[in-house]
Amino acid sequence: MINRILLSGSGGQGVITMAILLAQAACLYEGHNAIQSQSYGPEARGGATRSDVIISDEPIYYPKVQHPNILVALTNEASAKYLKFIRPNGIFLFDSDLVQPSTKMDADYVGFPMYKPVMERFGKPQALNICVLGALLELTHVTSFDSIRQCLKARFRPAFHQANEDALHLGQDLAASWKGTHRLG
Amino acid sequence: MINRILLSGSGGQGVITMAILLAQAACLYEGHNAIQSQSYGPEARGGATRSDVIISDEPIYYPKVQHPNILVALTNEASAKYLKFIRPNGIFLFDSDLVQPSTKMDADYVGFPMYKPVMERFGKPQALNICVLGALLELTHVTSFDSIRQCLKARFRPAFHQANEDALHLGQDLAASWKGTHRLG
Repeated sequence: MINRILLSGSGGQGVITMAILLAQAACLYEGHNAIQSQSYGPEARGGATRSDVIISDEPIYYPKVQHPNILVALTNEASAKYLKFIRPNGIFLFDSDLVQPSTKMDADYVGFPMYKPVMERFGKPQALNICVLGALLELTHVTSFDSIRQCLKARFRPAFHQANEDALHLGQDLAASWKGTHRLG
Repeated sequence: MINRILLSGSGGQGVITMAILLAQAACLYEGHNAIQSQSYGPEARGGATRSDVIISDEPIYYPKVQHPNILVALTNEASAKYLKFIRPNGIFLFDSDLVQPSTKMDADYVGFPMYKPVMERFGKPQALNICVLGALLELTHVTSFDSIRQCLKARFRPAFHQANEDALHLGQDLAASWKGTHRLG
């Protein structure tokens, strides 16, 4: 079992933090190997962010994700750039407040509003990445919620613990109540 | 010109943050390509942290650092594990409050106390990584101080800006006034 996860968006959306949390949860609390990386090239100068996570029980020799089975995009630019690389039957999770996918691929397109619910709940967008992470876990079970919770508690100061927990739950609930049809691609 | 940087220590010392700051500074403000990665395997379960940064003007095909020309270690465990991989004439920066290198390699050993000066100045160890980063920049010039300052300001809330600036200066001053002899290895 190997999960190749590509998380993409723009700088400041917390994409790298999501990636580090997933890799740490998989390794520290679930006994898998994980590697997490980000590249900075010309696209980063335009504000785009991409972070790769591979989770496997085998040794991981090449840490970049070329063809993800799980793709997350939080901007239209990221969606346009990476959706074409998704594996057949992959899961493409996007925030439909921020992204309108145009490319049709052989994948499950799972999109629902997350940005606005986060703004309504918290009054600021900083928790969006944790909300997206909650949705991702609900949809894919790449790690357990409890493993992520432990990483969140180790990483953030106590003042943020309740907001993180709320954001994780919000994403979980939004994904669980999503009524879209899979396989729109 | 290619810099292969390996930063190592234990979880919570801010090693990954140092790595991300270096990669972002090199790319966003200095026009280089950079890649930054961390692996999570059995050693991470023991609390060890390692993060790799490659900075180059050429495309970077393999993102892991096997033989660093710049190695930083903030624990004895990290020093014992990675020092043997340093390139000939590489720079090995360590905090002599925390690390007593035992291996002799063909490299410049640059060690001086940073942990205690950070504790005396700030009363807590959270700024150690930024202090080490200041020392690293003073010794190697892999990026400019100004590029790192811009990344620090983008990454941290304003309440932390002055402490980050002070920690960066502290590391710079400690490295500039270091009177050890290079080539102890």
